[in-house]
Amino acid sequence: MSDEGASQLFGLADELFTPRCPGSNVITKRDVRAITLAHLGLHQHTILWDVGSGTGSVAIEAAHLASAGHVYAIECNAEAVEAIKANCHRLHAPNVSVVAGRAPQVLHDLPDPDAVFIGGSGGALTTILEVVMVRLRPSGHLVVNLATLEHLSEAVDCLRQAAWAWECTMVNIACTQKILDMTRFAAINPIFVLSASQQEIEEV
Amino acid sequence: MSDEGASQLFGLADELFTPRCPGSNVITKRDVRAITLAHLGLHQHTILWDVGSGTGSVAIEAAHLASAGHVYAIECNAEAVEAIKANCHRLHAPNVSVVAGRAPQVLHDLPDPDAVFIGGSGGALTTILEVVMVRLRPSGHLVVNLATLEHLSEAVDCLRQAAWAWECTMVNIACTQKILDMTRFAAINPIFVLSASQQEIEEV
Amino acid sequence: MSDEGASQLFGLADELFTPRCPGSNVITKRDVRAITLAHLGLHQHTILWDVGSGTGSVAIEAAHLASAGHVYAIECNAEAVEAIKANCHRLHAPNVSVVAGRAPQVLHDLPDPDAVFIGGSGGALTTILEVVMVRLRPSGHLVVNLATLEHLSEAVDCLRQAAWAWECTMVNIACTQKILDMTRFAAINPIFVLSASQQEIEEV
Amino acid sequence: MSDEGASQLFGLADELFTPRCPGSNVITKRDVRAITLAHLGLHQHTILWDVGSGTGSVAIEAAHLASAGHVYAIECNAEAVEAIKANCHRLHAPNVSVVAGRAPQVLHDLPDPDAVFIGGSGGALTTILEVVMVRLRPSGHLVVNLATLEHLSEAVDCLRQAAWAWECTMVNIACTQKILDMTRFAAINPIFVLSASQQEIEEV
Repeated sequence: MSDEGASQLFGLADELFTPRCPGSNVITKRDVRAITLAHLGLHQHTILWDVGSGTGSVAIEAAHLASAGHVYAIECNAEAVEAIKANCHRLHAPNVSVVAGRAPQVLHDLPDPDAVFIGGSGGALTTILEVVMVRLRPSGHLVVNLATLEHLSEAVDCLRQAAWAWECTMVNIACTQKILDMTRFAAINPIFVLSASQQEIEEV
Repeated sequence: MSDEGASQLFGLADELFTPRCPGSNVITKRDVRAITLAHLGLHQHTILWDVGSGTGSVAIEAAHLASAGHVYAIECNAEAVEAIKANCHRLHAPNVSVVAGRAPQVLHDLPDPDAVFIGGSGGALTTILEVVMVRLRPSGHLVVNLATLEHLSEAVDCLRQAAWAWECTMVNIACTQKILDMTRFAAINPIFVLSASQQEIEEV
Repeated sequence: MSDEGASQLFGLADELFTPRCPGSNVITKRDVRAITLAHLGLHQHTILWDVGSGTGSVAIEAAHLASAGHVYAIECNAEAVEAIKANCHRLHAPNVSVVAGRAPQVLHDLPDPDAVFIGGSGGALTTILEVVMVRLRPSGHLVVNLATLEHLSEAVDCLRQAAWAWECTMVNIACTQKILDMTRFAAINPIFVLSASQQEIEEV
Repeated sequence: MSDEGASQLFGLADELFTPRCPGSNVITKRDVRAITLAHLGLHQHTILWDVGSGTGSVAIEAAHLASAGHVYAIECNAEAVEAIKANCHRLHAPNVSVVAGRAPQVLHDLPDPDAVFIGGSGGALTTILEVVMVRLRPSGHLVVNLATLEHLSEAVDCLRQAAWAWECTMVNIACTQKILDMTRFAAINPIFVLSASQQEIEEV
């Protein structure tokens, strides 16, 4: 299974990622992760910042995809940092650097990114976005996954003030679950995937 | 834009794909496509059959991802065949072969696949699945996107009879749309993404 | 609060219903219940069968609405029967009769219904539907809430064989939940609300 | 059909409501309307303001339910006013008064409400909410249906400043649609149903 995990480009089962502590879960689940990665506009050589990396699931799949690029997995929780390192090792993602510390402070020493994913912001969403909007390369993609109305408003306000182009995808996903010999759907809580870039996003 | 499309691994805007005829749309929209690709378990060297390829959007993004592999885009509609060819050329997917004809008949001459995606079945879902379940390599992934209750039942019945492991993801997605200075959500019709394999899928 | 519950026609908070046992929940949650009641086509004098009544939440709200009608709450679980009785008493629904026993057997002695809701079938969905399709009055409405793919297929097959008109509403609902000072959405698992009648339902 | 519409309490087919102009649609569709009505906490004697009444679908069903109460359908569009009147007449809702004019101005002369529904605000959401929060009776329910992120933020901000209790239900619904002999799901665009009251809403 670890071999499969290593060579499969993305779409790994959530269970393949060691959680930060027993019983906790991957935050960005497989199908939401797939949408997130799609919005990041990854190329082979992408430099990605993964802010609030959690168990590193987005960082690792992005690193598999951008195999000649590099991913900086920024995480301030010590247990999560250990989980990311273990997951990078087991799932063969040598092009991930784990950055232990708080955004936006630790972003200062990193190279300018082609893409930025914010999965967690530790209460500093606006200040992180302000730094990201300065540092992201001109044609780069910013993706922020938001579970709360407050963060959604905060991020949209911030992008608007900077006159960035943005769009938001509301994701409602349910996966089958066997109960006895029946198959019901178990819902994942809705997530707002906010995509932004410095350029105008064309309207459909 | 065509350059960006060429080097971006996946997550291309739907508008980048020339439709089969003016006014028609990509069937598997960007975010559904991302989930679909995630379930296909792609590797660098994957041989993929894309059955009912439509405009080739899944074929082309899979080909970008499995850059050392090969994608067979099977499509019986003559206009769609031309659209796929044009899209492969413009979006630089030299490792896609367009197979003009009907499944399951045309599958006979293709190499055994590591992954199969069925996006359209032209009324022959069961017979296609029967061939696919014989030809798919043992650890391979089968993904079927289904919009109707009848096809969902038919596919699930077929997989059950063959004792294949399967799971289904119900995808409800809505994307922001600007109206005047406001932002509303426009829903994409729900899609059932059915994933199957010969081996037991572990229950969560 | 019990006073409010008594006079409010429907839309009662789920917490107002005593569950069958501590820690268990109302199966048909408020918003799904509202959709269910809407599909039942209730009139003031409706005779309703509520098959698999659970905690009686649908029965009681239907009884409040059809105040000159009567609701038969059919339930085979002894604890649930007690919960329904307690809820009917506390929430002032004198026009609910609790029928302890199994459907379709216990349906024999009940008056022909104007509307039937099936919230649970104890493994006898087809035989219940067969009886209901004979006994439901010609212009009556049948509503079946389904959580599993197997029951959905079984019910649709049954309605098709009887050439009944049917439509199905897929309900994905999420409600805000406070976490600290933030507001996230907690999803309710998807439910299929299947509505049927002997007459042709007009297509939109 | 008009007879059925008259005696059925709620859950009327959307087609029963004459639209404001040919080709336009009922804004609050049947299933969303059911949820909306559930949140309004209707009693037999409820006085309801329906602000931005559109075709009157919410007003009329509320009037059927609150049969000893009264509904004020406020609408500024002249064609819509005519549609509401026609619908009230045809669907037997004598306890609806159509108020032609703009909220919040026209609210001044209306009796204090037990419940308020805002389906449209003509760009005056905050000022309407400010009047409603003064006039709504202490135990009354306010429901606002919102399709845009901007209005959702505006309404939530307004309720927060007034320290009102609120919760929000995100509604994603899809209804079956026949295509040839198949049944697919057609999605209704997501709606946020915001419920508020002066008292504390208990957290689940």
